[in-house]
Amino acid sequence: MNDSSNCFPLQGMESVKPKTVCIFGTGDFGRSLGLKLLQCGYSVVFGSRNPNSSSLVPKGAESLSHTEAAKKSAIIVIAIHREHYDFLTDLADVLKGKVLVDISNNLKMNQYPESNAEYLAGLLPGCKVVKAFNTVSAWALQSGTLDASRQVLVCGNDAEAKEAVMEIARSLGLTPLDQGTLLAAKEIENYPLQLFPMWRMPCYVCAVLTVLIFLYCLVIEVFYPAATRKEDTSYLIVITIPNRVFPIVSLILLAIVYLAGLIAAIIQLYRGTKYSRFPDWLDKWMLCRKQLGLLALAYAFLHAIYTLVMPIRYYVRWAWSNYQMTQLKSNETYPLSNYYAWLSDTYVALGILGFFFFVVVGITSLPSVGNAVNWREFNFVQSKLGYLTLVLSTAHTLVYGGDRFIYPTFYRWYLPPSFVLSLIIPCAVLALKFILIMPCLDQRIMKIRQGWERKSKITNSSSLKI
Amino acid sequence: MNDSSNCFPLQGMESVKPKTVCIFGTGDFGRSLGLKLLQCGYSVVFGSRNPNSSSLVPKGAESLSHTEAAKKSAIIVIAIHREHYDFLTDLADVLKGKVLVDISNNLKMNQYPESNAEYLAGLLPGCKVVKAFNTVSAWALQSGTLDASRQVLVCGNDAEAKEAVMEIARSLGLTPLDQGTLLAAKEIENYPLQLFPMWRMPCYVCAVLTVLIFLYCLVIEVFYPAATRKEDTSYLIVITIPNRVFPIVSLILLAIVYLAGLIAAIIQLYRGTKYSRFPDWLDKWMLCRKQLGLLALAYAFLHAIYTLVMPIRYYVRWAWSNYQMTQLKSNETYPLSNYYAWLSDTYVALGILGFFFFVVVGITSLPSVGNAVNWREFNFVQSKLGYLTLVLSTAHTLVYGGDRFIYPTFYRWYLPPSFVLSLIIPCAVLALKFILIMPCLDQRIMKIRQGWERKSKITNSSSLKI
Amino acid sequence: MNDSSNCFPLQGMESVKPKTVCIFGTGDFGRSLGLKLLQCGYSVVFGSRNPNSSSLVPKGAESLSHTEAAKKSAIIVIAIHREHYDFLTDLADVLKGKVLVDISNNLKMNQYPESNAEYLAGLLPGCKVVKAFNTVSAWALQSGTLDASRQVLVCGNDAEAKEAVMEIARSLGLTPLDQGTLLAAKEIENYPLQLFPMWRMPCYVCAVLTVLIFLYCLVIEVFYPAATRKEDTSYLIVITIPNRVFPIVSLILLAIVYLAGLIAAIIQLYRGTKYSRFPDWLDKWMLCRKQLGLLALAYAFLHAIYTLVMPIRYYVRWAWSNYQMTQLKSNETYPLSNYYAWLSDTYVALGILGFFFFVVVGITSLPSVGNAVNWREFNFVQSKLGYLTLVLSTAHTLVYGGDRFIYPTFYRWYLPPSFVLSLIIPCAVLALKFILIMPCLDQRIMKIRQGWERKSKITNSSSLKI
Repeated sequence: MNDSSNCFPLQGMESVKPKTVCIFGTGDFGRSLGLKLLQCGYSVVFGSRNPNSSSLVPKGAESLSHTEAAKKSAIIVIAIHREHYDFLTDLADVLKGKVLVDISNNLKMNQYPESNAEYLAGLLPGCKVVKAFNTVSAWALQSGTLDASRQVLVCGNDAEAKEAVMEIARSLGLTPLDQGTLLAAKEIENYPLQLFPMWRMPCYVCAVLTVLIFLYCLVIEVFYPAATRKEDTSYLIVITIPNRVFPIVSLILLAIVYLAGLIAAIIQLYRGTKYSRFPDWLDKWMLCRKQLGLLALAYAFLHAIYTLVMPIRYYVRWAWSNYQMTQLKSNETYPLSNYYAWLSDTYVALGILGFFFFVVVGITSLPSVGNAVNWREFNFVQSKLGYLTLVLSTAHTLVYGGDRFIYPTFYRWYLPPSFVLSLIIPCAVLALKFILIMPCLDQRIMKIRQGWERKSKITNSSSLKI
Repeated sequence: MNDSSNCFPLQGMESVKPKTVCIFGTGDFGRSLGLKLLQCGYSVVFGSRNPNSSSLVPKGAESLSHTEAAKKSAIIVIAIHREHYDFLTDLADVLKGKVLVDISNNLKMNQYPESNAEYLAGLLPGCKVVKAFNTVSAWALQSGTLDASRQVLVCGNDAEAKEAVMEIARSLGLTPLDQGTLLAAKEIENYPLQLFPMWRMPCYVCAVLTVLIFLYCLVIEVFYPAATRKEDTSYLIVITIPNRVFPIVSLILLAIVYLAGLIAAIIQLYRGTKYSRFPDWLDKWMLCRKQLGLLALAYAFLHAIYTLVMPIRYYVRWAWSNYQMTQLKSNETYPLSNYYAWLSDTYVALGILGFFFFVVVGITSLPSVGNAVNWREFNFVQSKLGYLTLVLSTAHTLVYGGDRFIYPTFYRWYLPPSFVLSLIIPCAVLALKFILIMPCLDQRIMKIRQGWERKSKITNSSSLKI
Repeated sequence: MNDSSNCFPLQGMESVKPKTVCIFGTGDFGRSLGLKLLQCGYSVVFGSRNPNSSSLVPKGAESLSHTEAAKKSAIIVIAIHREHYDFLTDLADVLKGKVLVDISNNLKMNQYPESNAEYLAGLLPGCKVVKAFNTVSAWALQSGTLDASRQVLVCGNDAEAKEAVMEIARSLGLTPLDQGTLLAAKEIENYPLQLFPMWRMPCYVCAVLTVLIFLYCLVIEVFYPAATRKEDTSYLIVITIPNRVFPIVSLILLAIVYLAGLIAAIIQLYRGTKYSRFPDWLDKWMLCRKQLGLLALAYAFLHAIYTLVMPIRYYVRWAWSNYQMTQLKSNETYPLSNYYAWLSDTYVALGILGFFFFVVVGITSLPSVGNAVNWREFNFVQSKLGYLTLVLSTAHTLVYGGDRFIYPTFYRWYLPPSFVLSLIIPCAVLALKFILIMPCLDQRIMKIRQGWERKSKITNSSSLKI
């Protein structure tokens, strides 16, 4: 890199190349990495206890004893298990001043009190330990299908050593991301063991809501007719009841997404500053809003399809046909009711438009789309269009309710119809938002978010932007 | 970075690290940036008027007077408002030769005649001014959620200074993009204030078309029955009429997308070269084709759902049921008409296939998908599949029309049915395209696009590719 | 870049800048690249036979003879056709030690025995040839719309020279990707001529299956009634039969995706190692699983819409209405059958859920989404959710079949109903998977995939991860 950008005295650089990387350990990952390095023009030297069993070593690489191999390169990849690290202390002299790349992973999270990289740095204080490559899969390196793991999280206390390792990652076609000092090693070692940590809480909330609403609907739609009229409506469990649960949970989740921001604004208003931290639960809530929103979108999607298949379902067709038969037998034809036509079309149209804007918001949640817009645009879509979605969905539910109230829907066992449940939080959120966008409060929040503090002492060099 | 790639003489580099960055101003963005720099292993020195009010400064950073702070680092981030820039002239001596990073934003576009960065460069001619970081949100830096603003647009007259700043951006996990000299500063300062500038014209065109077609349909479907038959068909406004407007506008927009390319080809044919610039309106039109296409896709999506909900709507069910009743009373049963079965299924199938290919084209518009294919593949999808979509959609409308012509659809008030409007531009585009792909013209266009000119003088070293 | 990261002695770097790039050839791509370089702060010198015809050269660039121009820069972009390369041998002296950037493309794949870059390196053994920029379109460079071609594939034998060229690519806002030594040049030169090479085999498989299943359905649903009952059911060709073909082919393709992995596991189990290569056909199959899966998703999407439009189709409405009429005339009303209600709703619900999870798996196939998750998460979605999709879809078909078996569906001409065909491979895959996840086999496979070999000799430094 150094001689390259001002690459005019290109003479004399032959002495440096080809760069040599040493790998300790001929395990699976060591070999995969070695092969990839060879393919990208590096010289590779393997250090192992049995340098002669070179059958394991990729073609083109040297196989030497640990000491010999270490002498050949300034960068040594430690591709061995943490349990075997202690033998490296014997090599302390030859390793002194070298860059050691710790690529190890554990079998479970927080398996050891300190990270493998920090443990290594403790064993060999004379070395520059860099944590890297543990997030990359050996199989992906071999097969070249690096779909999921092109990112190499790197950390280390020595900036130059870190940069040298990042440079290697870059030349392998990977994307190194500097994560700071070796303190980050623990997090980096946990990373490949994570399974959607940000999704855990949203999924839990969603599951609890789903079960509760499902049971509520079960009582009203299956148990009640069974108890009072000896009717078996159990077939409603398959589609009809899920199609009540999905929209209700979806609307509640969407409202919860925006509730977090409103609570944050109220706290900031109350405290008069944005520099004191939010309570922990609110921080977590704020950080998983995207996931909550996407779950709400998934449920909205299911609601849309469950609704569209209605006319195909045997039960629905039977019910419609039955209704027509009754009408025929009573020999009455009802004229078209303008009122019903308006009502039914309005709630359908509101639902479609709400879903449409929800999909648009969802698309901007895709990383590549989000990266292509500026901050103001991202905010516009996520906040303005998000609220529009919430307003449309709430209106959809309200008009649907209006439609239902007309028919004599008795409160079965004194329980309100299920859609009423879905309206509580959204209506509260919208009311709260309506209060907070009133000019007096809105301006105050804006000022706070631009760095203003109620008892601010600084007048000079104030804030620049949000 | 410097010693890293040939990182063999790793000794003696301790003297260089840790790198120090100086920040003038303890405002919101200054503090956020300082904190982030500290986290990424930099030393940070704040320069402020009241160096003792260090409570504002992130833990771990030094707080000094402006002069003292400036001496500590070769890079000084100017995190103060443009209005306060003049006090920097007093520090001209100490700032001489340093890299000044202008991170300021304005409150509105083109607020000042020259950009803040150029103004700063004018005040301090001895400094190397680099514009950067203004596109990053302080909040995003703090919270680590850099979804929308990972890109750092950088510009400056001094290449090394610019590279130094880009290096810092990279080590903060951001993506620096070199935008050239300080002339680009104005654009970079306007960037965060933009709200979908490329979408403005397409949205405007789309809105105008939507309103016009809506009014046209309103006249035909609501005013006409009201005037001639005293019928109240106002309920059609909610779904039926939008479901005419959406497909019509969608098809027109899609045709407009491809019309731009055809006009460009004709101009190139006429001029016999591709090196003279297109008229301004065509340039703009060409550049917003993607947005026009995505709006067309959005309308097609809405058309699809508005159509699929038909059987659920009260009005539609009433109409179908009514029709059946009439049939019953007249005691006639119509046998299945093979002709109608073909016609109805054909236009539905054409619509579905058109929509399907439209969605495929839309998916390749996602930045990450577009980046994963080569130029030829991108062209294939956007051009070939795009035209297939246009052909299928036009055929869909024509067959639909065919279906309608059979019923005695009188021209109400001498106005043609609304779908006829949607066919004019698409048919013209397809006819034009058909002419232009005739071998004689097609070959000529190909040659022109490869750099050939009608009165070309160069024979040596001709063009290499399109 | 060099002095920048330790950018404290910023003095004395004025001597190096601005960097100069020389371009041989004033063709289309040469001029576009030159203009872009100028915009990004480089000095550009064009070398051509007629240095005076500078009208072709972008404003701000110098135009000199080849020899003069070559002397000005260490990096020379060879923007001329391969056919003219031989004249460069005359300049061998002046070009000695320089970096030559070969940007040429061919008109068809593998046009010449060796790549253009290797040919150039052979002509001028004293030069450092780097292949780059051929994947970038001149038009995209000019217009700035680099949607599809931001990636610059780079290869070369000299690491420093390569890095210098990658540096230039980076400063033009492009993304250089190191592809190794000059051996990769052939592949890089073929790259822009590729048209979805990974999609070829999947599309072929999909097309063959589609045609076969279509013909099978045609026999059963059109030829059989025509032959036995003289009934014309040809209108079924438009939607009804495609809507049988789509789900059948989709399910088979989805099963084929997972069959590859199962066969690979069986081979690994049998061989007792993962280090011997798979047979070629299996390798290819493994590599195009993503494409097969996406085709299956596309067909599932079409199946979903073709099903949802059912109630809108004239034929379906006629059939339903006809059925109702018959019922009326016979004066019978059938009560709601709980059994049918369960059956019909169950298969619809299974289909919807299967489609839903399929869409989720499809979304993680987007490059930007796949990049944002770690390896374990990617595997979870692609493997666990993928199998869930397969199970749900197979169950959907089985329950649908169950529904059909009830009606007296005679085996027409001894042919089983078409859906039976779709069940063979999925059921086989699920049965095989069920066997392979039994603990004894599963543990063995896990061990093998972590690098264990049946006759393993290494005990030290074993594998680190999958």
